[in-house]
Amino acid sequence: MANIVLTLAYDGTGYAGFQRQHGLPTVQERVEAALADLLGQKVAITGAGRTDAGVHAEMQVANFRARTSIPMERFPYAVNRHLPPDIVVTGACGAGDDFHARFSARSKVYRYSIWRQAFPSPFMRRFAWHHPGDLDADAMRAAAAYLVGRHDFSAFRAAGSFSGDARRTVMRCEVEERPGLLIVRVQADGFLYKMVRTIVGTLIQVGRGRWEPGMVRRILVSGERRGAGPTVPPHGLCLEAVRYDPSAMIQLDRGMALM
Amino acid sequence: MANIVLTLAYDGTGYAGFQRQHGLPTVQERVEAALADLLGQKVAITGAGRTDAGVHAEMQVANFRARTSIPMERFPYAVNRHLPPDIVVTGACGAGDDFHARFSARSKVYRYSIWRQAFPSPFMRRFAWHHPGDLDADAMRAAAAYLVGRHDFSAFRAAGSFSGDARRTVMRCEVEERPGLLIVRVQADGFLYKMVRTIVGTLIQVGRGRWEPGMVRRILVSGERRGAGPTVPPHGLCLEAVRYDPSAMIQLDRGMALM
Repeated sequence: MANIVLTLAYDGTGYAGFQRQHGLPTVQERVEAALADLLGQKVAITGAGRTDAGVHAEMQVANFRARTSIPMERFPYAVNRHLPPDIVVTGACGAGDDFHARFSARSKVYRYSIWRQAFPSPFMRRFAWHHPGDLDADAMRAAAAYLVGRHDFSAFRAAGSFSGDARRTVMRCEVEERPGLLIVRVQADGFLYKMVRTIVGTLIQVGRGRWEPGMVRRILVSGERRGAGPTVPPHGLCLEAVRYDPSAMIQLDRGMALM
Repeated sequence: MANIVLTLAYDGTGYAGFQRQHGLPTVQERVEAALADLLGQKVAITGAGRTDAGVHAEMQVANFRARTSIPMERFPYAVNRHLPPDIVVTGACGAGDDFHARFSARSKVYRYSIWRQAFPSPFMRRFAWHHPGDLDADAMRAAAAYLVGRHDFSAFRAAGSFSGDARRTVMRCEVEERPGLLIVRVQADGFLYKMVRTIVGTLIQVGRGRWEPGMVRRILVSGERRGAGPTVPPHGLCLEAVRYDPSAMIQLDRGMALM
């Protein structure tokens, strides 16, 4: 059985998240159904990130084991014929037997898009959260800097979720301005449940001038979820990239640009 | 009765075009219904450009006559409460009695977006036409340059449409490269039916290397529609802006930035 790796892009609007859930439409279920159609065998895929309901992916990575004679360079075209237009396989390659889309990942990059104009945009409405009103990007940048490094992120985890060790390493937490948009980009070695959306909700409080940037450091140290800002809606969030060790990738097709 | 001007943005995916058509969903019909709901009076709007079925607008301009005591700066918020999320009023102001959204317009700018990547994008699929494969942007630019100026555009008008004088002045015909995208932008004092989509279909033949750039000049001079390239699909097209004389705009709110 070959260990096959796919890169996927999807518009999460119509899905109850990546991970299979009984009776609900999920990305995992649709991709597994497409692979079963194509390969004539039951297939179980493992995704690098469990994106929530309504969250998008520009580059999700998934792997699965199957027998196939389809050349990997043709594989995305073949799977896409069995997928709806809101899910697209953008790459495929064979990997070593020990490659695991989630456990082998070194870090993931999430992007949160905020539409800042006075009026909503009919074009961005599925992919950016509309937040009219001034946001001080510089203050948000100063606040974001406190989150970079290895910390206990208990204060930025969904209330009521207890998944053990809350320490994570955030490599990047950046605030970028684009025409009409403010983008928060977070790269970390792992994410707690709703962590990015709670970070963004907290940075927004700083951007509005309600909190000083230093408040974010105090919230982080407190470890208290109730001190942080609200969790912003899912549709502004997108899994932008998953990064692996160059060594783990040595057997992957370079054309996939997974680095 | 005040002469009220609106700027509108819309995702044209779900509409049979701007202009009212019996029994079909149109942008005009939805906006008129929203205004009737809001104002309690029947209202007929005039749009600057008659966008076709599936064509979008970042800035459409429309005017209508009505009595209202709603301040113009609140008017967009008030109308938007009566509109679906794929149509957004982005500005409103009072105009002089002789202002007409279509006849007063000096020029319109249309943008056609081509998604060039190997695989379709779940995010761009409503707003860009997927055309994988190499396109020589420089050759397309050289071809586009032949279209600038005052010409008879009969060769670039939908077959079977005869609307009199086919002379139009094209002020700009540009080819822009953005990540994953190729954009063709055309500004003219008026457009024939399907003119932009036929221009793009013709430039694509040059981009593919099937025709030399100079072929576009020969097609233009010939005046024969059968010589030009195919008409590309509507969903890549967007009405980007409508431009008016500064003098006509003197009574319009500067905040609308209609220039």
